[in-house]
Amino acid sequence: MELRYPNGKVYKENPGTYNTQEKQKNILYGNRGMTLEDDLNETNAYYLQEGIAVIHKKPTPIQIVQVDYQSRSTAVIKEAYFKQPSTTDYNGVCCGKYIDFEAKETQNHTSFPLHNFHKHQISHMKQVVAQGGICFVILRFAKEEEIFLLESRHLFFYWDRMLAGGRKSIKKEEIEATGYPIPVGYRPRIDYIAILKKLYNF
Amino acid sequence: MELRYPNGKVYKENPGTYNTQEKQKNILYGNRGMTLEDDLNETNAYYLQEGIAVIHKKPTPIQIVQVDYQSRSTAVIKEAYFKQPSTTDYNGVCCGKYIDFEAKETQNHTSFPLHNFHKHQISHMKQVVAQGGICFVILRFAKEEEIFLLESRHLFFYWDRMLAGGRKSIKKEEIEATGYPIPVGYRPRIDYIAILKKLYNF
Repeated sequence: MELRYPNGKVYKENPGTYNTQEKQKNILYGNRGMTLEDDLNETNAYYLQEGIAVIHKKPTPIQIVQVDYQSRSTAVIKEAYFKQPSTTDYNGVCCGKYIDFEAKETQNHTSFPLHNFHKHQISHMKQVVAQGGICFVILRFAKEEEIFLLESRHLFFYWDRMLAGGRKSIKKEEIEATGYPIPVGYRPRIDYIAILKKLYNF
Repeated sequence: MELRYPNGKVYKENPGTYNTQEKQKNILYGNRGMTLEDDLNETNAYYLQEGIAVIHKKPTPIQIVQVDYQSRSTAVIKEAYFKQPSTTDYNGVCCGKYIDFEAKETQNHTSFPLHNFHKHQISHMKQVVAQGGICFVILRFAKEEEIFLLESRHLFFYWDRMLAGGRKSIKKEEIEATGYPIPVGYRPRIDYIAILKKLYNF
């Protein structure tokens, strides 16, 4: 039964609860120094646990130069170097669909620099799209805590514009116009699958 | 027009060519010490180049302990350890389908030991299948140069049989009965996509 105040406003039990929780959330998450990678790892662990999707971050590619085999069971890598990734960082499967994406953040306020991506990653994304995979990037404006999903076809447009001599970044307005904001939640933290399900009807 | 010898046998121009090429192939490949991983990397490079599929081997997961930043651009990893992979080694996309597999070889003649797989990999494969991905293993009997594709559902059967106290390996006859032989070719070396296309109609 709906109760109302004398002025006609609907009575809600403990009306402050929602705001208090929101505030606590901001305290909890705003200050715990989590990176976009941490948030995505948590999100993917949640998807895995709930049977929603199987998405993993690929290990960092490393060129191993010297290994010490101290015993049969332990091998210590003594000299190695980071290699530039030739693919994106994340891939996996959801409802039979191949999912592939890269995640990057910027401290900028008004644009997202394209130097965050390597040309090999762009080539990889184009190959994935050609094979019918679902490919996108997750872009985070760290200062504003704003996160967007941008389908790779739009990234290709901005990338090709740069190659043609145009701007070396994507304007934030452009991301707002062509991408989809991902609200930061609790579980999952960054629910990109929800957006994909709407976009691709699966 | 078909020409025949007086004895009825079909005449082939330069009948030795095929065998000679086969022999050369055996010399070229039989002795060049290529591992299953090398062959699969070549196969995947071919698929990528020809626009047939986008499949990559994941980097080996490594736990980094100490890094020397000698200059702005160079970082040398001074201490690191190999981690056990929690997923399979290969994944990617072909015709929109998510493809996921592990490749292993044995020096055995009559059976394939199940200790080649870790329980985390089996869990991962089960998660992939539950999401509608295509999941399998490529098994190589190194001595005989025989390679099989075995769908993961059969691997699960043999794995569960082991957990229930049964044999710790898969008999070669069982692999022959439930898997598919992959002939070793030139380009691609190990054409597993051809088998998948027939099996899954894509």
